[in-house]
Amino acid sequence: MILEEKTLSSEKIYNGKIINLRIDTVELPDHKYQKREIVEHPGAVAILPITDNNEIIMIKQYRKTVEEVLWELPAGKLEVGEDPKKCAIRELKEETGYSAQKIELLNIFYTSPGFSDEKMYLYLAKELNEGNPTPDEDEYVEIYKVKIEEALKMIEDGKIKDSKTIVGILLSKELI
Amino acid sequence: MILEEKTLSSEKIYNGKIINLRIDTVELPDHKYQKREIVEHPGAVAILPITDNNEIIMIKQYRKTVEEVLWELPAGKLEVGEDPKKCAIRELKEETGYSAQKIELLNIFYTSPGFSDEKMYLYLAKELNEGNPTPDEDEYVEIYKVKIEEALKMIEDGKIKDSKTIVGILLSKELI
Repeated sequence: MILEEKTLSSEKIYNGKIINLRIDTVELPDHKYQKREIVEHPGAVAILPITDNNEIIMIKQYRKTVEEVLWELPAGKLEVGEDPKKCAIRELKEETGYSAQKIELLNIFYTSPGFSDEKMYLYLAKELNEGNPTPDEDEYVEIYKVKIEEALKMIEDGKIKDSKTIVGILLSKELI
Repeated sequence: MILEEKTLSSEKIYNGKIINLRIDTVELPDHKYQKREIVEHPGAVAILPITDNNEIIMIKQYRKTVEEVLWELPAGKLEVGEDPKKCAIRELKEETGYSAQKIELLNIFYTSPGFSDEKMYLYLAKELNEGNPTPDEDEYVEIYKVKIEEALKMIEDGKIKDSKTIVGILLSKELI
């Protein structure tokens, strides 16, 4: 079966600080037309920082989108042309103060490919050294250490609600 | 620490078929102002259908956002006022033809709370009966059965790239 869609035209709706919005008109495999709303995102990194005691460094952060304080892994969006690994090292340090002697790519995924191209690079950070956070001026976060077993229970109990964080913690099970 | 942000004003940028875009001006805890770009989404369901032989029913689908064919769990967006469980039963049937005698909520999460309010209801579907798919007119999908062990390897190998699908498959490990 041919699944691809051919782009016939593309209309820019909004160019923003973090995201852009465009509408593509595409030709479907049956030659009918359809509009596709597409949120362009620069891509992001998330970091799964695990201490020598099998604790995960997590943050609590208010998200205006959902008007809730969420438990999340440290994360941040890519600057233009930035190497994801460098971004992961930078965001971990800025948000939590921790620096990692070992940092490796765990997984790459799309957060919500139905309407957005956001690509998430998930890194594992180990051999951590504590330091002082230097958050962006619009970032307010609280930092916590959570045992892997406890984090898994928090997913089961619905206390952790962020997809990248759930993916990271579920993958961390393999690492203990 | 106070993490909440107070909304001072809200500007609608776009009202679309699936998503809306608005920009909120918020007051941060330090009384500075900041703009928040927010993609409103009606919410969605994903279904983890597991056969009696521990196979997952998966689909391959072209995503214009990322211009790739992705391996995904059956999924779909909520209609206005629709009960997520009914939506899950409907989407499973429409996309794959399967109906499930047992369907239960596994997890609820936000796909990308940095810029969107999309809430994902993930259901486990068991005791499946095969039938004929009746996809929406703009939906072209291929249907596959994949052993859970094979699906886990596809995550490790980077062949499965969709966050809801990764969450569902990683959670399915507990179910075999």
